[in-house]
Amino acid sequence: MKKMIIASTSTLYNGSYLEYLLPTLSEFFKDVKTITFVPYAQPDGISLDAYTAKAAQAFEKIGKKVIGVHTFDNPADGIEQAEAIFTGGGNTFLLVSKLYQYKLMQAIEKVVKSGTPYLGTSAGSNICGLTMGTTNDMPIIYPPSFQTLALVPFNLNPHYLDPIADSTHMGETRETRIQEFHTINPQPVVGLREGSWLEVVDETITLKGELTARIFRKNTTPEEWPTNADLSFLK
Amino acid sequence: MKKMIIASTSTLYNGSYLEYLLPTLSEFFKDVKTITFVPYAQPDGISLDAYTAKAAQAFEKIGKKVIGVHTFDNPADGIEQAEAIFTGGGNTFLLVSKLYQYKLMQAIEKVVKSGTPYLGTSAGSNICGLTMGTTNDMPIIYPPSFQTLALVPFNLNPHYLDPIADSTHMGETRETRIQEFHTINPQPVVGLREGSWLEVVDETITLKGELTARIFRKNTTPEEWPTNADLSFLK
Repeated sequence: MKKMIIASTSTLYNGSYLEYLLPTLSEFFKDVKTITFVPYAQPDGISLDAYTAKAAQAFEKIGKKVIGVHTFDNPADGIEQAEAIFTGGGNTFLLVSKLYQYKLMQAIEKVVKSGTPYLGTSAGSNICGLTMGTTNDMPIIYPPSFQTLALVPFNLNPHYLDPIADSTHMGETRETRIQEFHTINPQPVVGLREGSWLEVVDETITLKGELTARIFRKNTTPEEWPTNADLSFLK
Repeated sequence: MKKMIIASTSTLYNGSYLEYLLPTLSEFFKDVKTITFVPYAQPDGISLDAYTAKAAQAFEKIGKKVIGVHTFDNPADGIEQAEAIFTGGGNTFLLVSKLYQYKLMQAIEKVVKSGTPYLGTSAGSNICGLTMGTTNDMPIIYPPSFQTLALVPFNLNPHYLDPIADSTHMGETRETRIQEFHTINPQPVVGLREGSWLEVVDETITLKGELTARIFRKNTTPEEWPTNADLSFLK
């Protein structure tokens, strides 16, 4: 019995951390007092404690406590004991490296499949897919594998970005990059714009937020799907 | 005696393939009749032959023949026998995977150090650095390592892109990504804007083209260096 929120971003432009999601999270975590935070994606010099404090400050607004999984001697114990899990954003290569290092990939998969509610934003959403092969992040560290949690049967592209009109830059657009992914990999890719999220209840996957999502399937023209669309057919 | 051109991009906006570099390449390859092309970065469905034909069409304008390294039974033989090498752009994860698969990483390193002229654009430039850890590309395939040719003692970021003014997108800027790289990795990163290239003559490394380059060093404010700057001090 999976129960997940897979969000494109933690923060909207002009918003504060998790602000736009709080009404949803208040309902999603209604049976939960404490959320176990996975801070390992964070590379930018703030400590794991400081990142956890940032998450705690946001969740305090809806009456939840937050505990960092890094405070456990064995982080996998923190996942086993968690009432709920939140994996924050940062760098996906770093997050995946740490999840393998601490044997958290299997631990998270197991408890989420058993019903522990899971929230991911950005890198924490990337890892819900089959692989991290559609992350936007820089490969700042070499992880032992690109395989991720496979809690949904496709890949995610958070922070999905439409081509910029009149750009003279010759680097690839996001859409081109995902099409390159499909020259080698078969699975669909859900391009989640900032402000969108997927709600997963067991095997039912629904697009939420105010925006459409862009769905990429191999050898198929990309499609725009509206909010509240049932995306459970994707695999 | 190294002799290299490490270019940000193959193509400028409104330009044709390699066009802006041809005057430089005409001089750089003046003692060379045939250029061996490494097409393996190309993921987007065009064949290795078609990609090689595209390179051949450009080099025909300066009287050079092009041969694809993939046409050799053993591509490493193609590198050994090359008068000159050109590695084109595409996806760096794919390029690095193929270079390891065909044992070309060592082969290219060896001949370039022995004086075979080398041209790289985009992904073909990324691989000249210590690692591919500052590529912009999507991780569409898992390479056996992120280590690359180390023909210059730093990393490259081709297609360097300045932050977009007034953007409301919450994904990281290129500068932020490179700063994240520096939380884990020590080497400098040269951000090469489209239209810039590095000219390497033995251990002398000079910035060329009309633009400044942005140099990132760990724990240092990024610096703009002007064209014709001697960057040999970077390591």
